Amino acid sequence: MSEKSTVGFIGLGIMGKPMARNLLRAGYPVIVLNRSRGPVDELVADGAQAGTTPQDVAAKSGVVITMLPDSPDVEAVVLGEHGVASGIASGSLYIDMSTIAPQTARRVAEAMTAKGVDALDAPVSGGEQGAINAALSIMIGGSDAAFERAKPIFDTLGKNIVHVGPSGAGQVTKACNQIVVGVTIEAVAEALALAENSGVDPAKVRAALLGGFAQSKILEVHGQRMIDRAFNPGFKAKLHRKDMNIAAEAGDALGLDLAAAKLVRSDFDELIARGDGERDHSALRTRYPLPEPATLSR
Amino acid sequence: MSEKSTVGFIGLGIMGKPMARNLLRAGYPVIVLNRSRGPVDELVADGAQAGTTPQDVAAKSGVVITMLPDSPDVEAVVLGEHGVASGIASGSLYIDMSTIAPQTARRVAEAMTAKGVDALDAPVSGGEQGAINAALSIMIGGSDAAFERAKPIFDTLGKNIVHVGPSGAGQVTKACNQIVVGVTIEAVAEALALAENSGVDPAKVRAALLGGFAQSKILEVHGQRMIDRAFNPGFKAKLHRKDMNIAAEAGDALGLDLAAAKLVRSDFDELIARGDGERDHSALRTRYPLPEPATLSR
Repeated sequence: MSEKSTVGFIGLGIMGKPMARNLLRAGYPVIVLNRSRGPVDELVADGAQAGTTPQDVAAKSGVVITMLPDSPDVEAVVLGEHGVASGIASGSLYIDMSTIAPQTARRVAEAMTAKGVDALDAPVSGGEQGAINAALSIMIGGSDAAFERAKPIFDTLGKNIVHVGPSGAGQVTKACNQIVVGVTIEAVAEALALAENSGVDPAKVRAALLGGFAQSKILEVHGQRMIDRAFNPGFKAKLHRKDMNIAAEAGDALGLDLAAAKLVRSDFDELIARGDGERDHSALRTRYPLPEPATLSR
Repeated sequence: MSEKSTVGFIGLGIMGKPMARNLLRAGYPVIVLNRSRGPVDELVADGAQAGTTPQDVAAKSGVVITMLPDSPDVEAVVLGEHGVASGIASGSLYIDMSTIAPQTARRVAEAMTAKGVDALDAPVSGGEQGAINAALSIMIGGSDAAFERAKPIFDTLGKNIVHVGPSGAGQVTKACNQIVVGVTIEAVAEALALAENSGVDPAKVRAALLGGFAQSKILEVHGQRMIDRAFNPGFKAKLHRKDMNIAAEAGDALGLDLAAAKLVRSDFDELIARGDGERDHSALRTRYPLPEPATLSR
């Protein structure tokens, strides 16, 4: 049995904090860093060490994981002043688990490879509950060797672990996932809006549609949320907006005009402008009139 | 055991012919009518009687079923000269199983009700195979009494039989179904186009996405068709275009601007203009570049 590498974990948000905690519980020595102090103190109380800068964390770790909000954050933390790249030793492993643009993921991986570091892009889905329960889906891009090396860490954090392809392939897969989820939410929102505004019971429509080709996890889960007007997150509209933008821009970079993805991006913009960015992404239903349940029987 | 009513069956297309045959096999006396003679001769060889006009068929039948291409066809056959309405006796049952506009369905049902006839709108999904195997999904609008009366006939034709609500509710549900199916196909098409054009194996992306919230019957079945470039129908793009138009117009009539449904309607218009209206609806994938499989590994 080999000794476990020290893991540097940068970014202790809603997702990162429980992920770092799961690594600690599995016996990894963990050095943490976060913009705000609160989550650092919590993890230190659980047995982690606190780092001072990304460079400092990287210098003390054999594996560095970043879990950050967006592409510019990853670029700054990795390639910026006192960044991961300035501290990480050749032969180390770097895993970015943020959801960012595939182009950025490839650029960061190239910079790491140039320093003799194995690099993976490994965005996740499954939300806060998935992070807490170590049940995340993880979509991975990078070399076979880097993937094999990182596998025990992924097994500590998730369940559905897929090595999709080379650098950037994890982020491409995540973008695909977010397109399908977002556009399917819009599809279900339009269908249930048509039903309810026609005076037809949306619960019966949902049930009828689940029996055929219209079946989806989104119709099942988010369709029920729409019927119940239960728009507490879940996954926030403003975060899905960010992901739809990544997808739309990744398409544009390839000359693909992803029309439905762009439509849903602008739907999310509308929600956010209305002050509903903190609601669940199923709140796309609220773009259409919501009749009182009383009007549903006639 | 009550004697089985004579069923008048008008419209022996891809769907209507096997449906009428299933009624014959179940022991119903059937009188058939169709614009072209071929299918009539086939059904007569199977034991059906041939009618001369919708009025004639209706006058000789206790139950009349129509299975026609579009709203104007149903209006003409039911309300036009020598139409069903001019021949059907008070106390009879009329079932329209075509996919038409909810507004038209309600108008036709009202005309029937005024003549003392029980009327149902009962569009189906499940395609030619579903019709042949008596495995159709049937979405029904109309009174409880009319539904109970028609139930044995529906049991002869389908499996997933849902009485959704009053007149028009069956067509509203079908429109909802077609919105979800069409928009989800577009979602999967955009995601797999992004994957393939990024050099990522679409089969791996499909497999990864089936494990989470992006799961759908469409990703499973139509996603595989897109990967295999297998665009033989299935369900023809030009027929789905008709249904998306019904859905979009039903929304407009209620002041609902169903943006994704309209986007997919115009996508289908594009396919049809290119001469691809006879291909499967999963051919929405062909709106985006289709790289050769060779470019997928790199």
